[in-house]
Amino acid sequence: MIERLLQPEIDELIEKRDLGTLQEVISEWFPAEIADLIESLPPEIDVVVFRLLARDLAADVFEYLSLQKQEQLLHSLAKDHKLLTDLMNDLSPDDRTALFEELPGTVTQQLLRLLTPEEHNVAVTLLGYPEDSVGRLMTPDYVAVRSEWDIAKSLMHIRRYGKDSETLNVVYVVDHRNHLLDDLRIREILLAEPDTKIADLMDRHFITLKATDDRETAVQIFHDYSRFALPVTDSSGILVGIVTIDDVLVVAQEEATEDMQKIGGVDPLEYPYFDTSFLALIKKRGLWLILLFLGEMITASAMGYFEDEIARVVVLALFIPLIISSGGNSGSQAATLVIRALAVGEFTLRDWWPVMKRELLSGMTLGCMLGLIGVLRVAAWQWLFQVYGEHWLMLALTVGFSLTGVVLLGVLAGSMLPFLLKKLGADPAVSSAPFIATFVDVTGLVIYFTIAAMLLSGALL
Amino acid sequence: MIERLLQPEIDELIEKRDLGTLQEVISEWFPAEIADLIESLPPEIDVVVFRLLARDLAADVFEYLSLQKQEQLLHSLAKDHKLLTDLMNDLSPDDRTALFEELPGTVTQQLLRLLTPEEHNVAVTLLGYPEDSVGRLMTPDYVAVRSEWDIAKSLMHIRRYGKDSETLNVVYVVDHRNHLLDDLRIREILLAEPDTKIADLMDRHFITLKATDDRETAVQIFHDYSRFALPVTDSSGILVGIVTIDDVLVVAQEEATEDMQKIGGVDPLEYPYFDTSFLALIKKRGLWLILLFLGEMITASAMGYFEDEIARVVVLALFIPLIISSGGNSGSQAATLVIRALAVGEFTLRDWWPVMKRELLSGMTLGCMLGLIGVLRVAAWQWLFQVYGEHWLMLALTVGFSLTGVVLLGVLAGSMLPFLLKKLGADPAVSSAPFIATFVDVTGLVIYFTIAAMLLSGALL
Repeated sequence: MIERLLQPEIDELIEKRDLGTLQEVISEWFPAEIADLIESLPPEIDVVVFRLLARDLAADVFEYLSLQKQEQLLHSLAKDHKLLTDLMNDLSPDDRTALFEELPGTVTQQLLRLLTPEEHNVAVTLLGYPEDSVGRLMTPDYVAVRSEWDIAKSLMHIRRYGKDSETLNVVYVVDHRNHLLDDLRIREILLAEPDTKIADLMDRHFITLKATDDRETAVQIFHDYSRFALPVTDSSGILVGIVTIDDVLVVAQEEATEDMQKIGGVDPLEYPYFDTSFLALIKKRGLWLILLFLGEMITASAMGYFEDEIARVVVLALFIPLIISSGGNSGSQAATLVIRALAVGEFTLRDWWPVMKRELLSGMTLGCMLGLIGVLRVAAWQWLFQVYGEHWLMLALTVGFSLTGVVLLGVLAGSMLPFLLKKLGADPAVSSAPFIATFVDVTGLVIYFTIAAMLLSGALL
Repeated sequence: MIERLLQPEIDELIEKRDLGTLQEVISEWFPAEIADLIESLPPEIDVVVFRLLARDLAADVFEYLSLQKQEQLLHSLAKDHKLLTDLMNDLSPDDRTALFEELPGTVTQQLLRLLTPEEHNVAVTLLGYPEDSVGRLMTPDYVAVRSEWDIAKSLMHIRRYGKDSETLNVVYVVDHRNHLLDDLRIREILLAEPDTKIADLMDRHFITLKATDDRETAVQIFHDYSRFALPVTDSSGILVGIVTIDDVLVVAQEEATEDMQKIGGVDPLEYPYFDTSFLALIKKRGLWLILLFLGEMITASAMGYFEDEIARVVVLALFIPLIISSGGNSGSQAATLVIRALAVGEFTLRDWWPVMKRELLSGMTLGCMLGLIGVLRVAAWQWLFQVYGEHWLMLALTVGFSLTGVVLLGVLAGSMLPFLLKKLGADPAVSSAPFIATFVDVTGLVIYFTIAAMLLSGALL
């Protein structure tokens, strides 16, 4: 989507160590593009390129690097006290917090010591908020004006202090103790007469985030209110920072990826796929796979309990995969719908009852549909190939009723377990599709053989 | 998060038809809050409240309503030609396009006739871009300046025409034929001397979206470049609109929801759960459930083929759910990882080979792990309860090798099918977890019984 020197030419410049030309070329690029380049370079080389960057640019580029690359560069720069100090002080507070969060505690402590007293103060405050809280996302780089100022004074203030602000779309109004009084769009200020008082523009109606709110709350509020930035206050209403929507977009994508991976039965990866070590990849998947396997082992025991029935009516075994997988599929559908609706705030805990009523009806309907097809399948094969003997009708009914029951069970388990987990304070997405499927496999077998025992006793059993 | 009159008091005002007070109260609210209220009201009542809104506010509130509520209000307002005309002309072009897309063609035609010639032009142009394209997301409400202007003239222009702009963070520079030349941050303009020329601030380096790009591309670029707005150009580089990040956040959430539902084996819902009719809900789930059921029927036929083996060695049947579900689980994990990585642009099509190499190794490792546990399970039960007879070791090996093979198969199918679908121009998310599981169930049974035939022939078979 953007033009740049071709990769081979860049590679050549690096190989020839023509750092002067390289510096000239990349100084024209966007920080995100330079970060892309550095990301693609091997250790040793990447740090050479990074050192070419002017002080201001260095921090901008650093913010676009992945957390692992950041860690690795910090390691390579460990001896360069001056560069490291500049970098740490120049990073924007929200990105620096994300980095500190990821580093081992001792490294964070060392880096904190490099900060100026003001930046140190900011960093420690942000780190004081819980992980995944709005406090960790926010930046103190905003512009605030006082309600008693006039437009002329406010504009002067904005010109002077707006340079570091992450957004100028919105300016905040505070009192002398920094309580948030209102938010004003920059256009309201730009379009007003110079001698108008800020207080005259105020409507004292604004939306805030709390620093201790979960970051998913921030995604929902930004989604619902279409804002570019929102102010963050502490419990006493004092303005402590702002959150901007570009960071919220990143959070929204991360949270969606995590939820998806959980629904797929994977412990969420911390890094992108190719940056995840093979060992970590196996651990993230193997742990759940083994847990599910141990759960599924109960099926072998459950079937062992019905071994005599299977020996007498082998044909019963043929329908086992069909029946239990239908329960798993319908459960996976219901779980996915409910987990996502809970995540985006479409459902709250109180919705469990209307959802249950609807899912009870859905489960019955879907179950009857599949049950009917199951009956038709047995009848058709009997008519075509006469494979099921004289008691084929009882077998057909066993398959049909079992399917109805198992699908209903899958739908109910899939839709209610996420609510239950949320109620217990756990993450609803843990009730992954494979988890529901395993649960339904075990109970589904019991349903199937119980119905078989009831319908076929005296006839086949 | 925001304070407002308590719901019961609002309900009382509506019940007493005290519309004057109600109008006073809600005129203080945010459009999103009023939309929430109207959304919660039954038909007939909602339109009464909507009519209370001042002209400007009406369009703002309308934009926050769900598409169904919008449709329903339009229906109720059908006779009020004046209000409908105002509303249609006041809506912002991107939201109007979203509505027109959803309405039946004949209704859209009628509404288009209400627009002023300029708005009509805008609406028809936006509707000319393919659904799910960047063109449908964009708004022509931006501010552009000419490179030959100075700051003073530009600021005057911005003050005059910036009122309708969706964002003032960025101002675009165009030539006399509206070719995009650069983007400038408003702060660069605010902080410059009044007689500086725009051309002196330009670096001619900017990122654009193409109007025909897929909207998922927009999400990726906004995610990677941390911008609040991006310009959209046509194929000849002419500026045709901008896309703002608040709309992109909504798109990102929608796309994630759709992908999640597809992975869960549900045809994506068009509306939120409770706004989806029961019939639509059953259709979206039933269709896939039946397709998967028909696929899974092959398991019954496959097992029918091995009926003699099962009759001779009933114990073989006991491990069927355990083995096939392990394949399904490992496949669901791999599919989820790959589908999401493709969706967020972490993988491109060319990555299929490095992914395959890694997944081959992952599948082998995970398969051996589960295989080993399977062997131990059989050995342990044999040691504890002597249930599997003299050939227990061969049975244990059959279970172990089958698990390894089935897990490997699941991982490979789950990771490669999304690439294949994308290559064929289909949506990778269609290779849902249930779809992979069904595929692996059928092939897994064949693997299991083939290995059993090889290892147990002469002994048990």
